[in-house]
Amino acid sequence: MNSTYRDIFKWGDKREEKVDKGTLKVVKEKLNFSDSDLAERYLTGEMEVTIEKPVGIDKTLLERFASIVGADNVKTDDYSRASYAYGKFYAELVNLRMEYIPSPPDAVISPRTTEEIIEIVKLCNEYGIAITPCGGLSSVTRGVETPKGGISLDLTAHLNKVINLNTVNATVTVQSGMFGPAFENYLNSVGFTCGHFPQSFEYSTVGGWFAAKGAGQASTGYGKIEHMVLAIKVVTPSGVIETKCFPASAQGWDLHLIFAGSEGTLGVITEITMKVRRYMPENTQYASFAFKNFESAVNAMRTVMQSGVGLPHLFRISDPEETEIAFKTKGFDGTFADWFLRIMGYKSGSRCLMFMGVDGSKAYAKQVKKSVKAICRKNGSFFIGASPTLKWLEQRYSSAYLRDPLMDIGIMTDTIETAVMWDNLVNVWNSARNYLKHRPKTVVMSHISHVYENGANLYFTFLSPMEKGNELNDYAQFHKGLVDTINASGGSLSHHHGVGRSLAPWMETQLGVYSLNLMQAIKNHLDPKGIMNPGDTLGLKP
Amino acid sequence: MNSTYRDIFKWGDKREEKVDKGTLKVVKEKLNFSDSDLAERYLTGEMEVTIEKPVGIDKTLLERFASIVGADNVKTDDYSRASYAYGKFYAELVNLRMEYIPSPPDAVISPRTTEEIIEIVKLCNEYGIAITPCGGLSSVTRGVETPKGGISLDLTAHLNKVINLNTVNATVTVQSGMFGPAFENYLNSVGFTCGHFPQSFEYSTVGGWFAAKGAGQASTGYGKIEHMVLAIKVVTPSGVIETKCFPASAQGWDLHLIFAGSEGTLGVITEITMKVRRYMPENTQYASFAFKNFESAVNAMRTVMQSGVGLPHLFRISDPEETEIAFKTKGFDGTFADWFLRIMGYKSGSRCLMFMGVDGSKAYAKQVKKSVKAICRKNGSFFIGASPTLKWLEQRYSSAYLRDPLMDIGIMTDTIETAVMWDNLVNVWNSARNYLKHRPKTVVMSHISHVYENGANLYFTFLSPMEKGNELNDYAQFHKGLVDTINASGGSLSHHHGVGRSLAPWMETQLGVYSLNLMQAIKNHLDPKGIMNPGDTLGLKP
Repeated sequence: MNSTYRDIFKWGDKREEKVDKGTLKVVKEKLNFSDSDLAERYLTGEMEVTIEKPVGIDKTLLERFASIVGADNVKTDDYSRASYAYGKFYAELVNLRMEYIPSPPDAVISPRTTEEIIEIVKLCNEYGIAITPCGGLSSVTRGVETPKGGISLDLTAHLNKVINLNTVNATVTVQSGMFGPAFENYLNSVGFTCGHFPQSFEYSTVGGWFAAKGAGQASTGYGKIEHMVLAIKVVTPSGVIETKCFPASAQGWDLHLIFAGSEGTLGVITEITMKVRRYMPENTQYASFAFKNFESAVNAMRTVMQSGVGLPHLFRISDPEETEIAFKTKGFDGTFADWFLRIMGYKSGSRCLMFMGVDGSKAYAKQVKKSVKAICRKNGSFFIGASPTLKWLEQRYSSAYLRDPLMDIGIMTDTIETAVMWDNLVNVWNSARNYLKHRPKTVVMSHISHVYENGANLYFTFLSPMEKGNELNDYAQFHKGLVDTINASGGSLSHHHGVGRSLAPWMETQLGVYSLNLMQAIKNHLDPKGIMNPGDTLGLKP
Repeated sequence: MNSTYRDIFKWGDKREEKVDKGTLKVVKEKLNFSDSDLAERYLTGEMEVTIEKPVGIDKTLLERFASIVGADNVKTDDYSRASYAYGKFYAELVNLRMEYIPSPPDAVISPRTTEEIIEIVKLCNEYGIAITPCGGLSSVTRGVETPKGGISLDLTAHLNKVINLNTVNATVTVQSGMFGPAFENYLNSVGFTCGHFPQSFEYSTVGGWFAAKGAGQASTGYGKIEHMVLAIKVVTPSGVIETKCFPASAQGWDLHLIFAGSEGTLGVITEITMKVRRYMPENTQYASFAFKNFESAVNAMRTVMQSGVGLPHLFRISDPEETEIAFKTKGFDGTFADWFLRIMGYKSGSRCLMFMGVDGSKAYAKQVKKSVKAICRKNGSFFIGASPTLKWLEQRYSSAYLRDPLMDIGIMTDTIETAVMWDNLVNVWNSARNYLKHRPKTVVMSHISHVYENGANLYFTFLSPMEKGNELNDYAQFHKGLVDTINASGGSLSHHHGVGRSLAPWMETQLGVYSLNLMQAIKNHLDPKGIMNPGDTLGLKP
């Protein structure tokens, strides 16, 4: 039976991860942790959950909700409310560990149909009750918090099914609350793949992917989620918008794309029709490369993307520090192969790893791999076979779950990511790293993981000891400085995590006042009373 | 010196095209035209232009415009006003031939800078004067008409330059009024291509491409214009929106895409930053195929798009009637090769031609061509080499200019196009053809020319004798029935021609009232006084 704060901040299956030996070694070496530091268990949140704030929706109204969705699907108990109070943003996890939940939703409601959602939205609009649409709650941007209380709409309990597979069109229509694994397993069983594998894959939903404008690890080939979705159904306070499915069209601007990145502020997305691709894992080609430095790896990657050789699906570069740490944590450090690479001039501290995977027909995958190898060779790389990429794939999701045991031993660990044009990539990478490394005892691992003809993302993971007793302020300041730095150097606010509330304060600076006004006007039209995920999400009012 | 109505409806270089012998043969055979019919010259519009409607903007205001852009850049003479009264929609050309221009703009203004446009928009907003932003006037949807008079903003006179080429990012920033050939020639000279070659290429502009959401003949590989544009600057009555350039991002929904397909109703697009690709024509591979019937050609095309073999850039199928006419007009009919194809079972009346071109690296282009050949072979095709595709490319733009000489001999000739999902393609093709063939003496040529994983466009060209004395009503009824038919069978209103005013009456049915309301709300926010391309464009008010 789940009942503690710890149950909430753990991932969906409540697994207790352990920090692996390799990572422990890095923590000891780089953060100066002693064995006794490592034995500590800090802010573990093992108390039973209790919520002080009373339910702010009166009984009559709760009964009306119950009459719509059934009594079983309206929950107002403390644990349910607590479970929907936060996503997975670092500061949210600290709050949970501190057993601090000042503003939970008043109720968690699990609708069974789109029609029920229409009724709920009507009722909430009538009484001015906030609605926060929720998928897997994996938001790392404070996107699912409920500062205005109201109801959290759990779309995963019932709205989690495939509605229609069209094998001729290669499209699938799916309810927004379906989780990644169930969706992909179904598609694989009928010969397709969704091609969208964010790190949150195991605990995120199709609707969440689209609402937060996510990207999967194979996005270089398959595109971001907004490039895959063809049509949606969305319940807004101003009516149900259902766009038609065309491969492309010219009948005004594309309205479904307004909901890509809308983060619950415009309405409840209930159905999504998206492209699927043929599932042919037997054809996939993998390759890994060592480069002498970051710049040459980036140059090779850019050349691949701009040379008309076709596209890898998975395409990544780990920067020197991430590469060094990968070598340490995977036990590669000090091996013969490590020695050999050093001898060859691929020295620790400057060398970089590149991972590549390409799907498609046998001939396509082989041709792309061959072309990538040739371009990498010209940029001074050393081909190190498929296995480093395959090893990375083994932990493609689980590496995220390390955060909890690291926080148990008092380590602040967070990520931030941005999109940049090629000519600004090294600059933003340097600026963000310099900022982060300014903090004593801070490990910073950076990678590029979503690549385009014209630029790429940059993804930073940092580890540093918590400032005990001042965790939240310390983090807030550090985070603010980091976002300021990235913005000042020309990176986007986000490439695929979204904005939520954590990045909302930068929206006007980043977009300009007229752009933000346009977003607000769209919000005001669709949600005139401001009930949809209110409280500064995306920098929108209320 | 240009001065007649005929000068206006001719294309930009005022060339006098002749109907080629092949087409004359088809007209004689299929439309029953005699030699004396062919000798006729009908509604040739050779009168001097005179405009009855007085200039509706008072002198003081005209002087204020002149003080902004310079007196030379404000024109109110009859010929200038007449030149901006219409695009290239069939009924507009008939009007010109009938020397009928009831609602020209009051003035044609050619701004020199974005700053001047800002001042013009301010002034027009203050006085409620309509603004119609104009590129090459190649609209075939009544998108540049001026039912409310006001000013036509000619963006081509001065705002026609490349602002910046970024060879690292592979992007170019260009003023919206630059014509296709100048743009592409510049890009070629620095090793790039824009990849966007609509049939209107020679007389259309980058801004027009984006505002009308066009597609080029190589869109299967390079994408539609909305897939290529990364950032824009647009002057709206509510302020200047300038989006930042990122390869992709997750900072709210993508605002620049709201202007893709906005058709001048939201503001004046002044700058566009778009992807460019490496220009490597020496690598391009071409292939042409004959298929026994339309269905097998479509099946092969769909299989190519869904098999992960890479993408052709140019990818087309001509349906049996278009194929038959191509054979006749190109003098292929009755040759040995024709006989041989018939013997092999590729019979006139059911056989179809497929054209393919693939750009990119040598290895990529070869691999894609090989894969396409294998898939086509499996679908019963006969490979007929590169030359039919190359022949088609020779007349890729000029075939459009045939319309004028055909109208000279009293032939109604028009096109319509739609986007469909694969599973509905043959149905829409049949429905539209059945409708069109219902009219006596009507030639209907159909092709697929823009192809996606999930569907494609369908493009219909029809020729039929004008109903003399009742040209406009006859056409209006025929056109209405055709659009009704396509919509009823599930095609989109347009794939790449846009909506303008000619398709506006179908917008609410096609999109639904809530979607159209959302578009109207966006319009109302950006253009609260309704001065931007007013008069029902896109079905928006006013």
